[in-house]
Amino acid sequence: MIKFDVITIFPEIFNSYINESLIARAQKKKFIKINIHNLRDFTKDRHQTVDDRPFGGGLGMVLKVEPIYKAIKKINLRQGLRLSSAERPQGKKSKVKVVLFTPRGEKFNQKIASKLSKLDQIIFVCGRYEGVDERVAEKIADMQLSIGDYDLMGGELPAMVAIECISRLVPGVLGKPQLLKERITKEGGFLEYAQYTRPEIFEPEKGKKWKVPKVLLSGDHKKIEEWKTSHGKVIES
Amino acid sequence: MIKFDVITIFPEIFNSYINESLIARAQKKKFIKINIHNLRDFTKDRHQTVDDRPFGGGLGMVLKVEPIYKAIKKINLRQGLRLSSAERPQGKKSKVKVVLFTPRGEKFNQKIASKLSKLDQIIFVCGRYEGVDERVAEKIADMQLSIGDYDLMGGELPAMVAIECISRLVPGVLGKPQLLKERITKEGGFLEYAQYTRPEIFEPEKGKKWKVPKVLLSGDHKKIEEWKTSHGKVIES
Repeated sequence: MIKFDVITIFPEIFNSYINESLIARAQKKKFIKINIHNLRDFTKDRHQTVDDRPFGGGLGMVLKVEPIYKAIKKINLRQGLRLSSAERPQGKKSKVKVVLFTPRGEKFNQKIASKLSKLDQIIFVCGRYEGVDERVAEKIADMQLSIGDYDLMGGELPAMVAIECISRLVPGVLGKPQLLKERITKEGGFLEYAQYTRPEIFEPEKGKKWKVPKVLLSGDHKKIEEWKTSHGKVIES
Repeated sequence: MIKFDVITIFPEIFNSYINESLIARAQKKKFIKINIHNLRDFTKDRHQTVDDRPFGGGLGMVLKVEPIYKAIKKINLRQGLRLSSAERPQGKKSKVKVVLFTPRGEKFNQKIASKLSKLDQIIFVCGRYEGVDERVAEKIADMQLSIGDYDLMGGELPAMVAIECISRLVPGVLGKPQLLKERITKEGGFLEYAQYTRPEIFEPEKGKKWKVPKVLLSGDHKKIEEWKTSHGKVIES
């Protein structure tokens, strides 16, 4: 089982996502476990302040280091683990990672997902507002990731994307393991190709006919495989 | 106002996301409108079948073209629009696009988000299972997009990512428009840099001191700008 711990100031965003579809099923079957932590629970002032103005000027607010530190410390202590990989005993391979989502992070891809799927626990820190105090990146996080070259409002959607992508790779989560194996190329990539299903001819309006390519109806397996390869894209993994 | 219409077989996944944070506020203030459509409502059989086995063999199921066609037709008719850009009258610039999420699509980025943010309406088709009948891509969709080089379980998270990214760019959605302008570079990119906030020195444990870089406390604006640029990453937009 892989555990996902998410630290966020919008814990409710995750509610329906984690209770639906294959993600809900994977939790029920104990392939994965998702814990959502409200960052505000780790503040000590009456207003539960999680942010403050940036040093050096600039508009907007920055998430403070202290509540994030405390949240991770509490999550880790409960598991009997130390704070970050840097502080863990040499030689003992760590199976937990702290991931910070930031637009400046390494680009998340299938290869990284595959590596992360072998861990016991991943703690995701979701940034919000204009950023996160950089000491979280410097001193606490093991990895900084970005899911793509676009700006979001926070790290919540990236956390869901990473959780879904990693969970898919945990044995048992996808009902049929063949679904993954079937499309793996000789080079270890994953082939995504054009697919068609019934009806063979779809008539959206009178006189219009949208047809399935003939080769797919031919029963000629060699030709079908060639067609799939030439109409597909390999995703590296 | 920009309208987002999402076609999915897991409409509940979106519930908490669209009712939280800045997305909820943007809807309340009528900057954006999100409609979630259950694909099963556009089937006619008792079992509300949305998928079938692929032609040419292969494991897994493929989403059928017909319910998707019907869903889009209904969404569009309500708006008095035609089915797809290809069918709209020449010369009249279309302000609605149908977007299909697929791992084989064009990579979504800030530039595409910026273009899409100028539309009146975007209809997102969320794939699931092993794929979507390719006739949706060929005949119905105006664009095929992918949010990154990784495999997900469906197009629901990509739709949320696109909605969040595009909504941010709609004037009024972010409380302070300066937040966007402030970091725009001369070349039109968007600068993401390291940020720090109080405390100036954070002591996670006795004897450990995590400090803010001195230059940010110096009050020397020229040096601070230089530091931000050298500690930042420009995202093209």
